[in-house]
Amino acid sequence: MPNTPPSPRRRGTARTDALLQVTLELAAEVGYAGLSIEAIARRAEVGKHTIYRRWPSKAALLMDALHRVWTTDLDHRDTGDVHHDLREQFVRSAAALSEPPIGPVYRAVIAEAQSDPALRAALDERFLHTVEQRTLDRIALGQRTGELRADMDLTFATEILCGGLYYRHLLTTRPVDETAIDNLLDMFMRAYATDPPPPDRG
Amino acid sequence: MPNTPPSPRRRGTARTDALLQVTLELAAEVGYAGLSIEAIARRAEVGKHTIYRRWPSKAALLMDALHRVWTTDLDHRDTGDVHHDLREQFVRSAAALSEPPIGPVYRAVIAEAQSDPALRAALDERFLHTVEQRTLDRIALGQRTGELRADMDLTFATEILCGGLYYRHLLTTRPVDETAIDNLLDMFMRAYATDPPPPDRG
Repeated sequence: MPNTPPSPRRRGTARTDALLQVTLELAAEVGYAGLSIEAIARRAEVGKHTIYRRWPSKAALLMDALHRVWTTDLDHRDTGDVHHDLREQFVRSAAALSEPPIGPVYRAVIAEAQSDPALRAALDERFLHTVEQRTLDRIALGQRTGELRADMDLTFATEILCGGLYYRHLLTTRPVDETAIDNLLDMFMRAYATDPPPPDRG
Repeated sequence: MPNTPPSPRRRGTARTDALLQVTLELAAEVGYAGLSIEAIARRAEVGKHTIYRRWPSKAALLMDALHRVWTTDLDHRDTGDVHHDLREQFVRSAAALSEPPIGPVYRAVIAEAQSDPALRAALDERFLHTVEQRTLDRIALGQRTGELRADMDLTFATEILCGGLYYRHLLTTRPVDETAIDNLLDMFMRAYATDPPPPDRG
């Protein structure tokens, strides 16, 4: 690549990435309750007002930070086999949810959201909405190619796919392992796969 | 009924019921973190050791208290129509989960369980296990009568039925309403109902 200075837009993106990274690191160290915009600004060496111009609260900032890590790692593929692509993505999601940096911070955010409706709203709107959209796009594609039934409710099927294993993760001592993922996808495919399977796409 | 004094066993059950009731009341007032065996014993006018003889921790006692309210209200019926019976029970469960005495206490317990593995284990073993067993029994009956497919994994189908809407309840701002329950049951019945339907049982 030619050795030209980065564009202002690219410098802005790099600064945002650094700020979101600092936010996650600090959240992992001090927990959600101990997190503050002041401390994030200090560690990232930016002014508080620089942060407040873009994020109304630490909840919004942290959701964007989780979102950045998540969406970098967790794209859905399109191999033409919706069951395969969902499985691959869910196995990666489950690993991310149980490991740093997302795992412990995310668990703490969900806990805090039980007594903080504004945090729950930020979680829903700034994070889950985007995660769900990716799964919705993938199963909508499966509908268009004829792998999945046209009368499937996309929104609700997405919710069960994205949310179906949180019970296991948050309320039980059972692991979110590949068996659990396979069972969920088995129910989903039994309910919504077309039968007989459609002819080859190619 | 003849006016005889209650048996020792019945007096013991009444005392246990009163103690569990006090536990729930106090948890609703002070939250899980503020709850103590000492305070429960004081309000119930029993000795601390009376409680510790039967419950190893406040978590265990509170799970049994939730369990008592839950199981009093939330039996599954058997009308011969598994979809109907599940729907009726889930509509009642969803109401119970969003209202006192269970609603706020239960939400707080789940939050606390994110940083307290012993509480999560108590929640799983002393409460959810019994709730799940009732749903498992009802769908196992549906298998025996031929309404549901013999190759359904009972344990996992139960988990999705009992847990599938916790994501909505805990992580989003969407209500656990009858539409959500109907969507979950629609997926379940599409996946596991026998087709064609079995002949009448009678």
